[in-house]
Amino acid sequence: MSRNLYDEAEFFAGYSRLPRSREGLAAAPEWPTLRSMLPPLAGSRVLDLGCGFGAFCRWAAEEGAGSILGVDRSQNMLARARAETKDARVTYRLARLEELEVPEASVDVVYSSLVFHYLDDFAQVCRTIRKLLARGGWLVFSVEHPIMTAPSHAAWLSDADRGAFWPLNGYADEGPRTTHWFTPGVVKQHRTVSTYINCLIDSGYRIARMEEWAPDCAQIAAHPEWANEIERPSFLLVSAQLASEAP
Amino acid sequence: MSRNLYDEAEFFAGYSRLPRSREGLAAAPEWPTLRSMLPPLAGSRVLDLGCGFGAFCRWAAEEGAGSILGVDRSQNMLARARAETKDARVTYRLARLEELEVPEASVDVVYSSLVFHYLDDFAQVCRTIRKLLARGGWLVFSVEHPIMTAPSHAAWLSDADRGAFWPLNGYADEGPRTTHWFTPGVVKQHRTVSTYINCLIDSGYRIARMEEWAPDCAQIAAHPEWANEIERPSFLLVSAQLASEAP
Repeated sequence: MSRNLYDEAEFFAGYSRLPRSREGLAAAPEWPTLRSMLPPLAGSRVLDLGCGFGAFCRWAAEEGAGSILGVDRSQNMLARARAETKDARVTYRLARLEELEVPEASVDVVYSSLVFHYLDDFAQVCRTIRKLLARGGWLVFSVEHPIMTAPSHAAWLSDADRGAFWPLNGYADEGPRTTHWFTPGVVKQHRTVSTYINCLIDSGYRIARMEEWAPDCAQIAAHPEWANEIERPSFLLVSAQLASEAP
Repeated sequence: MSRNLYDEAEFFAGYSRLPRSREGLAAAPEWPTLRSMLPPLAGSRVLDLGCGFGAFCRWAAEEGAGSILGVDRSQNMLARARAETKDARVTYRLARLEELEVPEASVDVVYSSLVFHYLDDFAQVCRTIRKLLARGGWLVFSVEHPIMTAPSHAAWLSDADRGAFWPLNGYADEGPRTTHWFTPGVVKQHRTVSTYINCLIDSGYRIARMEEWAPDCAQIAAHPEWANEIERPSFLLVSAQLASEAP
């Protein structure tokens, strides 16, 4: 994404009002699942790509990670992240992934939440991260589920027979989708589940787990507004490990 | 599936008229992709679960497989498979997967086309096949894509804005779906993509590749009636390899 949404006032104001922006990881409903897909962080060198306000970085420090680097391309996000972070093991850096300079094989765990569906070359992302990762290192990430990003008109429909349903089209047609999210012209990159998985495999990762997040009954009871989410997955979560041997 | 559809006259008559039943692998549009996901078969011991009329078994013999066992639970299917197969390396057996008796670690490649979405316990399927497979052996299969099996009303809709679209609902709600396919009351088991993938991983397989089949431009040009298939994937294809070491 060349446009820097998070440094645009209207978008940033809207984004900052999201529950997950105000309340951190506890307000991200997919977080317990994503957390369960992480390796133990104690002593690890952790990199958070698209760290936003730093909630994950601070959590990683609490988990005992040895060092945590949070990277974001938004000045706005990093200013708040720095203000809210006291732990000296956490550092933040303003950078795009494409330009990030980190020594080869110097990271044990790369984490990224809801960022990669903005980037237009996921194979390149996999290769870039592979260079940063030590052998046996982990890449754990979430993206909007391809079922979410595919449709030409991404909005719920309903009828008497079906109740709420999701009008899926364009699934095999990978590429940009322009949507309105706080501001017009937000561009996401649609790619299929198999493209995510095969790019990882082709780059030398082993798929350790994938999840298509939907709320469970307890979550729907607590948040009745999420009830539709059982009809189609909203997030794709993947845990992948770099091979211990050079490929 | 306790009901044996393929030995019911009405269903069998309808199924036998399908292009893939009349013309074999060449009429199965996903076959070139599935074929590309197979390891080389020369000298291998091959097992086809749900072999139907034996088209894959005969192809595997042409590819130089050392022995090919085709298994099906339909007398009708096997009668025609036997009549059409001359190669002595191919044998057929009437059995359900759950009751199949094959020596442990005696198979190099298990293949199964469009069968597993009828079986109600995929984790059990993975474990059963793991026992049959030699270390480093392969499981390559296709199923109806979960996007296909999920909806309560699995039929195309269209409107002026979107053109044709697929009314997806119930994705996270795994379990039986009753449909009409040549005959009423055909029961398929809906499970998510992540359930397929995680069951394999949990049973000790490495995911080698997954594909969500959609026709390419040349296929749509040759079969304009497939044009909608670009809107949502119809088949999920998976290639998985058993670890070379005991888990």
